[in-house]
Formats: sequence, C-alpha cells, structure tokens
Amino acid sequence: MGNITIKQLADELKLSPGTVSKALKDSHEISAETKKRVQELVQKLNYVPNPYASSLRKRKSKTIAVVLPTVADSFFSQVIDGIESVAQKKSYHVLIYLTHESFLKEQSILKEFKSGRVDGVLISVSSETKQSDHIHELQLSGIPVILFDRVCEEIETAKVTTNDFECGYAATKHLIEQGCNKITYLSISKDLSIINKRMEGFIKALTECGIKTKENNFVFCTNDDTENFRLVSKLIEHNDRPDAILASVEKLATTVYHVCNELHISIPHQLKVACFSNLFTAFILNPSLTTITQPAFEMGKAAASLLFEALEKNNFVLKNENIVIPSTLHIRNSTAGSI
Amino acid sequence: MGNITIKQLADELKLSPGTVSKALKDSHEISAETKKRVQELVQKLNYVPNPYASSLRKRKSKTIAVVLPTVADSFFSQVIDGIESVAQKKSYHVLIYLTHESFLKEQSILKEFKSGRVDGVLISVSSETKQSDHIHELQLSGIPVILFDRVCEEIETAKVTTNDFECGYAATKHLIEQGCNKITYLSISKDLSIINKRMEGFIKALTECGIKTKENNFVFCTNDDTENFRLVSKLIEHNDRPDAILASVEKLATTVYHVCNELHISIPHQLKVACFSNLFTAFILNPSLTTITQPAFEMGKAAASLLFEALEKNNFVLKNENIVIPSTLHIRNSTAGSI
Repeated sequence: MGNITIKQLADELKLSPGTVSKALKDSHEISAETKKRVQELVQKLNYVPNPYASSLRKRKSKTIAVVLPTVADSFFSQVIDGIESVAQKKSYHVLIYLTHESFLKEQSILKEFKSGRVDGVLISVSSETKQSDHIHELQLSGIPVILFDRVCEEIETAKVTTNDFECGYAATKHLIEQGCNKITYLSISKDLSIINKRMEGFIKALTECGIKTKENNFVFCTNDDTENFRLVSKLIEHNDRPDAILASVEKLATTVYHVCNELHISIPHQLKVACFSNLFTAFILNPSLTTITQPAFEMGKAAASLLFEALEKNNFVLKNENIVIPSTLHIRNSTAGSI
Repeated sequence: MGNITIKQLADELKLSPGTVSKALKDSHEISAETKKRVQELVQKLNYVPNPYASSLRKRKSKTIAVVLPTVADSFFSQVIDGIESVAQKKSYHVLIYLTHESFLKEQSILKEFKSGRVDGVLISVSSETKQSDHIHELQLSGIPVILFDRVCEEIETAKVTTNDFECGYAATKHLIEQGCNKITYLSISKDLSIINKRMEGFIKALTECGIKTKENNFVFCTNDDTENFRLVSKLIEHNDRPDAILASVEKLATTVYHVCNELHISIPHQLKVACFSNLFTAFILNPSLTTITQPAFEMGKAAASLLFEALEKNNFVLKNENIVIPSTLHIRNSTAGSI
C-alpha cells in the first residue's frame, strides 16, 4: 500500500482530487492530455491505489452480503437470524446469496461484489471450495470479509467457528461408551476444514480407545441426495455393518433414518446415530436424535458484530483472529442403551 | 402513460435522446437553457415519462430479488431452490431479503428496490401486511413484481398460489372421517389471505358435516414461539380439549408435538394432528406427521419463469392472472386410527 494519496497527486498536478480519481479510472470526462499527466506522475512517484480508502468512499450501500451454500439447513437459517439481529440495529440491509455448494457460483458472486454493491461480506464457503483466491481478491478490492463456520484457514481475517475437533471427539467417545466399536463417520466433503476437523476428533477418540480405523470407518457423501441414499444403503446392508454412525451434517442424519426405515433397522438397538445438527425437530424424531448443536445464532451475531465494528472505523483492517464458540452435545434416544 | 417518447421530444428539439433524458433528470451536464427548452416542450405536449421504458434502460443488474418472511421454514427454502433453478439458466443472481414478518421491514426493502438495484421482484408478504401500497408503488416505478403463496389479491399482476381452500377442506374431511368432531384450526395471521382460505375450507367441511363452529375451534397464534407454546398448552390443557388440530403452518405442528410431549398427550390416540408443511423430516417424526405438502419447488419455478418471460420482452406488463398449483394431502400416523 503506498503512502501517497490522491489528494497529494492532485496538489502536485494542480488538479482537483476528483479529476485525478476520474483520470485514474480512465473516465471519458477527462482529456487524454490530463490522463497522460496523471499517469506520468503516478509512475514517477510509484503511486499504488489504496483499496481501503477507495472502499471507504464507496461504503454507502448500507448493505452487507451473506454468502451461504444453502438455506435448507437449520444451522444456516439460524445463523441468518443471528446476523439480522445485529444488522437490524445498525439499519443495514442483509442480502443472502446462495452458492448451492458450487465453487464457480461462489466465484461469480464474489466477483460481483467488487462493484461496491455491498459494504461487507460474511461467507461460509461451498463444499467444492479448495482454494481461496476469489476471497483474497475481494479483500484486495477493499471490501471487508469475515468467514464463519466453513472457513479458509489461509485467508487473513476474522473467522468465527465452533470447536469442531473437540465435538467430533466428544460424540465419538459417547458412542464408544455406549458399547459401539464399529463406528462410521459420514463426511460431506474431503476439502472443508471443519468437516475434516470433526473427522480428526473422531479418529483421535477411536485411536485413544485402541480401535483401529479401517476403510469402512469413512463414507464420503456428495451433494446429491439420491446418491447419498445409495451410499448409506450400501453401508448398512453390508455384512459387517457399523453399530454406530456419526453424521457430519444434518441432512445425512435424515438419510440414515430413511434408510433404516426402509431396511427395518432399529435405531438405537441395531444402530446408534449422532449428528452435527441444529434441526429444530431433533427432539421429536422417531427416535429423538442425539446432536452436536452448534451455536448458530451466536456465531451469526459474532460475525456480524465484528463486521460492523470494522465498517464503523475509518481504518478497518480486520485482524487475523479465530473466534471459537463451543457447541453442545445433546444426548437423546438415537444413542440410548448398549449395543 | 403518455404516447410521446423521449425520441420524439429529441427530434422536435434537434437534440440527442441522451441529452433530453439527462435534461429531464436535471443533470449537471446539461445547460440551464437546454433544460428550459426541454421542460417547455414537455409541458406543451403533456409528456409523461414511461416508467416501463425507464426500467427497460435500467434493466442491467442481472439480479432479481426474492422477498420472504423467513427461511426457517421448509416451504420457503424449497421455493428458493425452485427460483434459483430458473435463474441459474438465465445467468441471473438471486438476492434473498427477509422481512421476519415485519410490515415495516417489508416497506423499507421494497423502497430500496426503486433505485434499480434489481430487475424484478418475487414476493411473499409478511403476516403483518394488511395493505399493499408499497407493492403498487414499486410497480409504478417500473419494476415487475410477482406475488407467490402469500399474495395480495388487489395487486394487479401474476400470482402463484396453491389450492389452499380445497386443502383446508380435504384435511378437515379426513380428520372428521377419523372420528374427530372437536377440531381446532391454528391460524398464524388474521390478515393473510391464504391462511384465511385454509380456514374457510376448514369451516366448510365442518358445516357440511353438521358440526357447528365455536370459539375454541380457532386459535390465533403469533410470531413469538414462547407465546404460541403458551396458547397451545392452554388449548390442550382445557377440560374440553380438541380431539384434532389442523395447523396452518409448519412451526405450529412442532409446537403441538412439543406441548403433547410435555403434557403426556398421545398423538394420534388422544389428539390427531395435520399440518400445512413441507418439513423434510415429517415422515420420521414420532409419530410421522400428516401433511398438506405444497408444491414449493414448482411454485418457485413458475413464479421465476413468469418473471423472466416478462424481463425478456420489450413490453413487460404482467397480466393479472392466478396460477394455482395443487398441494397433496399425505396421510401419515399422526392422524391414524379412530378417536
């Protein structure tokens, strides 16, 4: 970031800052001669436009964007409520953009923000997102970005997550205590750091208890519900079927219940089920579902509060920090009794 | 709408249409003298700007807005999927705005659209919305608006709904056939036309079967879950408690299950429950829930298709038409057996 400002360029050239700014943007309102004078000075002084300052001027949309993979998941709909509870007080509009788990869609959405449509962005990345150049570019364009839940570790900004590793560990320990030793982890992505952290907690608990992990301890599901139904059916129909399933996301627990209904497998007697889920019907399911309940509302609130704090300051460089809000293990009937 | 165009004004004044347009907008780029000439001709010819034409020029955001009360309801999250399935093909962005059932928020959101931020709007109104001036004003500003599900009858545009009256009637008939004669309808709003149509179907079925409606056949719930829990508890604890409940929206069925759990009332033996709901866990609830399932995805798709049809035409006055896509009654265990 250069220390020279548009104001200094303007003074030097005896032009108004507005004219210099327009010349830098190659505006048709500015003569070719003026543009040439500006460009010469820019090169002489090695002027680099300050993206933050540029954004400060544009910060008037009174709108923030929330980029999510889906709203058909209780976690995300509760996060939105948390975000809106803060935005409402600040009189900001909240726009929700859905990636539907597509990396290309996510790129395209973030690209659009560079035009200044929104003042700041809260994002939870898609399950396809393996790299984060698109997020970094958005930051460079001067738009503050905060990541929540599904974060990219390498992006330098505030990140709001929950204790995924510890919860994967605690839920697995609970299943082992209930007598299970053939536990399968249903993953939804090989790339998402939070899904892998949950899996690392799962592996740690198994290892500590002297249970060796094999290939059938892991099933990698997809974004296609029909395919997931097939994968889970195959797992449960197997001769050596698991005695417990730990599902990494809410919709996979529904698939497990569905498959068990079809195959007449009794939960929890023949198979115990626990899931990372904020499903508001968890306690009235048949049987009620043991969940790791994430502090969705609080996470949304924390992410939005950090963003508004940044937007209200003149110099809003967001610190590279991790805010971790712990989840809660709710033990219910789907993991009751001994195997 | 006048028949005179900016082109005709420009020809008459020997100016370019762009200059006339800028003069009409009082642009600083145009001299006072030119503005005066334009204004004189405007008054002479009684020229009225064409809002549709104006919007045609602005129609470049490649973005449509979806205004919803909430996303924490399966119906709305499935509607979004239907809308996005069409928008994706047309390479349009979809922005989701939530009113959280607040009429004031809805007004404020719609007001913002007048700036041309979006090319078109799909809206399902809040439970507080009693009048529709804000929607009419948006139409006048040249932005096409389509209503879905929660519509305002008086707005002249395309409206996509389901057969709410028939479904209220069919679900009530089913409950009567199961031996129920003390059925309570849980309403969520006195103002929403669809909630009232469901209630009219309910009343018709009762009347046809010679069951007189009394005060305790109706409970009017709110947007406050705690208050709803209190209202439903009071209903079920009453000496003369109902033998069946027809809930007008998904979240009220969850409240009924919750209350029955607390009060040890057995569904369906002591109380039968049916609900207008697209809950994807309906079939794995304890007991599985009888639902009137709305064609949410199809409704979203139909509404979006109509909007894009309008956006792609040069003259996009939306016809005042009602598109009705029927719902399906799914009979499950919550209404099984006889009372």
